[in-house]
Amino acid sequence: MYGPGDVRVEEREAPRIVEPTDAILRVSAACVCGSDLWPYRGVEQMQWPAPMGHEYAGIVEEVGADVQTVKPGQFVVGSFWATDNTCEICRAGYQSACVDRVPMGALGAQAELLRVPLADGTLVPTPDIPSEDLVRSLLSASDVLGTGWFGAVAAEAGPGKTVAVVGDGAVGLLAVLAAKQLGAERIIAMSRHESRQRLAREYGATDIVEQRADAGVEAIKELTDGLGAHSVVEAVGTQESMNQAIRATRPGGHVGFVGVAHGVSLDGMDLFWSLAHVHGGPAPVRRFLPELIDLIWNRQINPGKVFDLELPLDQAADGYRAMDERDAIKALLRP
Amino acid sequence: MYGPGDVRVEEREAPRIVEPTDAILRVSAACVCGSDLWPYRGVEQMQWPAPMGHEYAGIVEEVGADVQTVKPGQFVVGSFWATDNTCEICRAGYQSACVDRVPMGALGAQAELLRVPLADGTLVPTPDIPSEDLVRSLLSASDVLGTGWFGAVAAEAGPGKTVAVVGDGAVGLLAVLAAKQLGAERIIAMSRHESRQRLAREYGATDIVEQRADAGVEAIKELTDGLGAHSVVEAVGTQESMNQAIRATRPGGHVGFVGVAHGVSLDGMDLFWSLAHVHGGPAPVRRFLPELIDLIWNRQINPGKVFDLELPLDQAADGYRAMDERDAIKALLRP
Repeated sequence: MYGPGDVRVEEREAPRIVEPTDAILRVSAACVCGSDLWPYRGVEQMQWPAPMGHEYAGIVEEVGADVQTVKPGQFVVGSFWATDNTCEICRAGYQSACVDRVPMGALGAQAELLRVPLADGTLVPTPDIPSEDLVRSLLSASDVLGTGWFGAVAAEAGPGKTVAVVGDGAVGLLAVLAAKQLGAERIIAMSRHESRQRLAREYGATDIVEQRADAGVEAIKELTDGLGAHSVVEAVGTQESMNQAIRATRPGGHVGFVGVAHGVSLDGMDLFWSLAHVHGGPAPVRRFLPELIDLIWNRQINPGKVFDLELPLDQAADGYRAMDERDAIKALLRP
Repeated sequence: MYGPGDVRVEEREAPRIVEPTDAILRVSAACVCGSDLWPYRGVEQMQWPAPMGHEYAGIVEEVGADVQTVKPGQFVVGSFWATDNTCEICRAGYQSACVDRVPMGALGAQAELLRVPLADGTLVPTPDIPSEDLVRSLLSASDVLGTGWFGAVAAEAGPGKTVAVVGDGAVGLLAVLAAKQLGAERIIAMSRHESRQRLAREYGATDIVEQRADAGVEAIKELTDGLGAHSVVEAVGTQESMNQAIRATRPGGHVGFVGVAHGVSLDGMDLFWSLAHVHGGPAPVRRFLPELIDLIWNRQINPGKVFDLELPLDQAADGYRAMDERDAIKALLRP
């Protein structure tokens, strides 16, 4: 990306092993993230030009001398953070705050070849080379599914719970899928787009709320005996969506927030009186990867459906444009 | 209270049973709460004159026709909210957000006689009439102990955990006691007052940090391998203390906040990147009362030590003044 709105695909030097813990992947599929739209829209500043992309699945080409658990020829999925997976924070399940973490976005996964630092701690091999129809779902595990999943886990979605999801982007839709897998009794998707409502229902939504802001909160309360939802996933990252999430949660309930909170502030007094639990941040996808790969491999979930646009890598700019204009939920890029 | 700084003790009409679910108590002991200082200092507006006090323990004088679980002659402790203890929110352990809740402060517990609505759901009798030395500890269970306890529970203090407590008022000191009871491995009290440090150590603090703000956060990190505490209790309610609490928490750790958050806002992006869990609000003291009464009755804890000033009720104004000037941690009032 050369600046807001300016995405170019160009020849760059092929990445090489730098550290003995690195691996080089041949990327089978990459994609555009909702968070890539923040710099694209000029909301987030970067040092231009910047390599882009942090979601990836592919075949290991080469590994450094110290890599032990992945080997050339394997199909692997990794998180959007490279992590050692051995430090105290990783062992507590918060790999996205690993003391040695490296953001994959800085390396640029929207590419043919990708260097992955800390390969042993970052990459999870699939049982075998996946059939073509599984690749997009496996790719989704790298971030968007893992992030929606974390949102649902942070919101403590589970049996007997009513879960509301604020946001009908790919993360929100996959939070619906996650809530269903986690056993939620009732899942309310907040969406005013028919095609997204349809996918939400397919993923397990039992109710749709089209209203936003205060009216959206009221609608959730009406569906929950005036109390609010037990669990609310915030998957947008704006002031309005965060307020909506906190106000739609019952006292003692849980807000899981995974939208990157741009310009958001939480009023301390509102939070105090809400008695809600609030937890979120960059998803520790690595925690969930083995389980998610397993569910995908056994065809119990089909998260790859959120990719409603597939383009060759050299048309990446069109993928950004389509997502920016909300013509596409999520664009998959094929190198 | 007739206005900021203006506390008067006067004859009022004796409270009578209004609803058949009411009880009338003869108050054995009441006290001044840190939160009573907000209107005293003019930070919080009220309709003057306002009855004051929401912490109480005493003997049941009379009960309404529908009261079944408490009876005249019993010594009881109640929460600072009157609650039904039967609604869905109460059953989930969030009695302080009971759908039928009544704030006891509106009734004025700094008095000889007190009407307690929803007596069955609010009051917990002690096994017998307590000996005089237990009364102050039992009184503390009504709010200040229950609030410190909730802070520690919300921060998920427990075995193997390092717990930091921001605030050395009575709530903070009792959060130290709670963390100890909950099995925390290491307890860091943040205090720069020698007498409060001493009580913190007596209650189980293993370390004292005197620094505040960024320096305080750094001191906590130095004590925790650079990671931050697992659990942080925020027991002040200011912007500085809340920032300090969030920044002193490790990724995936828990902030329990029980300071009433006056003028506080939480930056969404800071919260996002902190990966902390945040939970707090008005403590559901009723959830903890049976357990707390039991611990006090068996002399396993001595929370009553936070009362370092005891006055007859007619000198209530002196109690407010002493707490306002931080000459006393907490003032007990004897009707």
